[in-house]
Amino acid sequence: MNDSNETLWARYQKYYSEFPSIGLSMDLSRMKFDDSFMEAQRPAIEKAFQAMAELESGAIANPDENRMVGHYWLRNAALAPNAELQKVIEDNLKEIKSFAAAVHSGEIAGASGNFKNILIIGIGGSALGPQFVSNALTQPGTDKATPYFFDNTDPNGMDKVIAALDGQLGQTLSIVISKSGGTKETRNGMLEAKAAYETAGLDFAKHTIAVTGEGSNLDKVAVAEGWLKRFAMWDWVGGRTSELAGVGLIPAALQGLDIQGMLDGARACDEVTRTQSMGENPAAQLALMWLHGSNAKGEKDMVILPYKDRLELFSKYLQQLIMESIGKELDLDGNVVNQGLAVYGNKGSTDQHAYVQQLREGVHNFFVTFIEVLKDRDGQSIEVQDGVTSGDYLNGFFQGTRSALFDKDRESITITVDEVSPFTVGVLIALYERAVGYYASLVNINAYHQPGVEAGKKAAEAVISLQLKAVEFLKSQSEPASVQQVAEGTGEADSIESLFKILNHLAANGRGIEKLAGVTPFDAKYRIVG
Amino acid sequence: MNDSNETLWARYQKYYSEFPSIGLSMDLSRMKFDDSFMEAQRPAIEKAFQAMAELESGAIANPDENRMVGHYWLRNAALAPNAELQKVIEDNLKEIKSFAAAVHSGEIAGASGNFKNILIIGIGGSALGPQFVSNALTQPGTDKATPYFFDNTDPNGMDKVIAALDGQLGQTLSIVISKSGGTKETRNGMLEAKAAYETAGLDFAKHTIAVTGEGSNLDKVAVAEGWLKRFAMWDWVGGRTSELAGVGLIPAALQGLDIQGMLDGARACDEVTRTQSMGENPAAQLALMWLHGSNAKGEKDMVILPYKDRLELFSKYLQQLIMESIGKELDLDGNVVNQGLAVYGNKGSTDQHAYVQQLREGVHNFFVTFIEVLKDRDGQSIEVQDGVTSGDYLNGFFQGTRSALFDKDRESITITVDEVSPFTVGVLIALYERAVGYYASLVNINAYHQPGVEAGKKAAEAVISLQLKAVEFLKSQSEPASVQQVAEGTGEADSIESLFKILNHLAANGRGIEKLAGVTPFDAKYRIVG
Repeated sequence: MNDSNETLWARYQKYYSEFPSIGLSMDLSRMKFDDSFMEAQRPAIEKAFQAMAELESGAIANPDENRMVGHYWLRNAALAPNAELQKVIEDNLKEIKSFAAAVHSGEIAGASGNFKNILIIGIGGSALGPQFVSNALTQPGTDKATPYFFDNTDPNGMDKVIAALDGQLGQTLSIVISKSGGTKETRNGMLEAKAAYETAGLDFAKHTIAVTGEGSNLDKVAVAEGWLKRFAMWDWVGGRTSELAGVGLIPAALQGLDIQGMLDGARACDEVTRTQSMGENPAAQLALMWLHGSNAKGEKDMVILPYKDRLELFSKYLQQLIMESIGKELDLDGNVVNQGLAVYGNKGSTDQHAYVQQLREGVHNFFVTFIEVLKDRDGQSIEVQDGVTSGDYLNGFFQGTRSALFDKDRESITITVDEVSPFTVGVLIALYERAVGYYASLVNINAYHQPGVEAGKKAAEAVISLQLKAVEFLKSQSEPASVQQVAEGTGEADSIESLFKILNHLAANGRGIEKLAGVTPFDAKYRIVG
Repeated sequence: MNDSNETLWARYQKYYSEFPSIGLSMDLSRMKFDDSFMEAQRPAIEKAFQAMAELESGAIANPDENRMVGHYWLRNAALAPNAELQKVIEDNLKEIKSFAAAVHSGEIAGASGNFKNILIIGIGGSALGPQFVSNALTQPGTDKATPYFFDNTDPNGMDKVIAALDGQLGQTLSIVISKSGGTKETRNGMLEAKAAYETAGLDFAKHTIAVTGEGSNLDKVAVAEGWLKRFAMWDWVGGRTSELAGVGLIPAALQGLDIQGMLDGARACDEVTRTQSMGENPAAQLALMWLHGSNAKGEKDMVILPYKDRLELFSKYLQQLIMESIGKELDLDGNVVNQGLAVYGNKGSTDQHAYVQQLREGVHNFFVTFIEVLKDRDGQSIEVQDGVTSGDYLNGFFQGTRSALFDKDRESITITVDEVSPFTVGVLIALYERAVGYYASLVNINAYHQPGVEAGKKAAEAVISLQLKAVEFLKSQSEPASVQQVAEGTGEADSIESLFKILNHLAANGRGIEKLAGVTPFDAKYRIVG
């Protein structure tokens, strides 16, 4: 701090704000910015407020994809830029609620009875939000459905889920979620799920719904096969901001969670974080602290430490929301900036027994965001010693870690929420969505595209093509061939390393390729068998 | 790379090694060290080999706690420094196996029948290992027990677990794990569990075992209450290396997992990684890559990307193993070094849809460790397109991400294992345990203590004391008191901020403290009610 005469308590009072309408308070006092920092950022944050206002009114805020950014309209349809969009949003929500009601009443059911499980087939934004929310709000014993996930293209991972659902697929509703309808992991998951239903003698189409863009490949499959239902996704909602669109609301509603509560929380938070005043806007405050904490260029990691089991997956959700939004090579003017904010964390006090040792003593490459939850539990607590509960210890460990870190000059933000409820989950999602938007403005980047994701996908497709060529070549050979020979024979000498990995993968999976060991790993030969 | 004429394939062949006895290979080729790096490190790694040999033979390798470090003996008792210790280890393993057999046969059972669930009450090393292993090796449908965890002191988190076990506590075996027996979270978890069993009309002692140091407070409780069984923990096994001690083996054995396979894998890996030759020792190679990747001082984060669902919790396990071991303020000579290696990651290809955007384009503050698993699944795969399986896509995404990152100068290590099995899980645990040991030698720190953890615990105890004082003071007052008045009245003016947080926490939980709002948050008053 600049003013060495300022007591911590004076600083706490200066930088602690309560936002009663959203049951949240924010404490910036343990971030060591000096008083001039906020003033210096005023022009930049005012520009960010302006950009956000334009985005919310329907400007093309994602310029290189030529798209509007409309996730804020989802919780307040009246804000949508025209009556048509407003109706689309309102009708979609009604449709979700009535579909969930029909499933819960048994009007829509599986071959073996009411749907008691849901299998969510989706990846990235189509899984991280539902996983976070489900874990945060589940009520074992009263939930209306248990969620399972295919969130990868790992065959064994899918087998594990199907084994857990053994004998229950006839009461399992599959939800295939892909905005573009072209995500390979999700396409593969859909085909694997279909095969599992068919093996169980069940009609996949009668146990499955789609959430996808109208006219996408997935949409076409759902129409052609006569799936139970299709829900729309729109190009103005990004994957990482889709938890409060159908992507997140449908699984939550089917699980019996209070989706209106989540929407209400997000709407209330949007109202607060729309305020064009730094002191009254917790999202702007967060964004400014990220700017300070990371020196405006991701120099430090953001460690998220919620002291609450139900918020354990929040950091994983935020990894996508923040890192995919902020981690960009170019700024809006085309300069190379390599922006980013690395996010990790699980929950306290658990993590105190994992890596807080390093946070306190080790490399000083982070700042912490504590999330404190005031309400310990429903009902009364036992005392674990006279006058003290388990929850008092949780509070004690949070406070203790916060001050032990501060003693070593490690900075922290503290967000306090009243409880973990549908409303506060909506608040937290909306708070971080908007903080990301403001931060992107402050560092002058497009938060709403993800150009770097394509390269990995294209490279993966190239590997698949290479595999097909390698197999074709081996089929044409009467003698076993080395990787060198495969590379030359396919005209893919530049991809020999990839071929080496492909051949070893095929050989390890009984895929009709046998590997004959050589003197070195690179002398091995491969041939078609069976 | 130094030699710009070296092709990637030539470098791959030079820095790719297979270790067939442990079903593992390691590829360092995409780390951009130059050829002189390995030679330059030779004296340092030879010193590390020496230090490890001394540790394994029973030297006091944790000097400031005056302890031996014996986790390597657990999988090869013949290595223990004396016959007595050897027998202790062998007897403990026999005892674990026979106890698990007695539980599985129903000889030892709960009030309502065979134990079909286990409730693991432990935190840090007492939970992270069991969680990782359980998730990696579970076989839904054939497991002999389902694991649940109390790994925090969050009241609601515990209520959620108890709700999931509703009606089943009579078939649930609780395992209270605390080496010292003094860990507050675990003590609280034990008391909460006991209350839940009693509410269900069950005798907690008849459903509970302890894993703890002989004579610890927990041990005494277990004796006094007549628990089903007590298993020993020893001061020469650290919490973060206890997965292959009773801490990890008992839950695994009860779940029906092949603990001998895990031990065999770890022993085989120990044999390989004991080799005093850089080229033939994958743990030494890993440690050297960490040195290169982080510039010997934690300058870059370690992103762990296993392309396999079952390894999703490995990074969380490694957060403790690596960060608690390496994140140290002082080196062995007492110099302030603030060492560390920040670890995060989940799984691929899932994470490609989360933060790989940032890894490829954003802030360049990390290196990646890919973990590739050759075997896709048991049994045959469907084709998701002609000649292509879901597993081929997983392989394609892994390879694609590895090369897309490399195209942008982002470095990576690739570890390839044949499959996910008890053996390879043991291998991976042992590999990283030893890499941590070597790395600690390379940077001259004590990997086996955690002095920074104490500060947070002490500060937490101070918060609990403060709470008791505040309540006592309020009880003595006839009028509501402000936080200022409480601070003055308790003589704790220096802790006013903590008192503010304590009072708000108590008031939010119906704990007999009422909060009366004021003009500002700091004008609120508090009084005892009820």
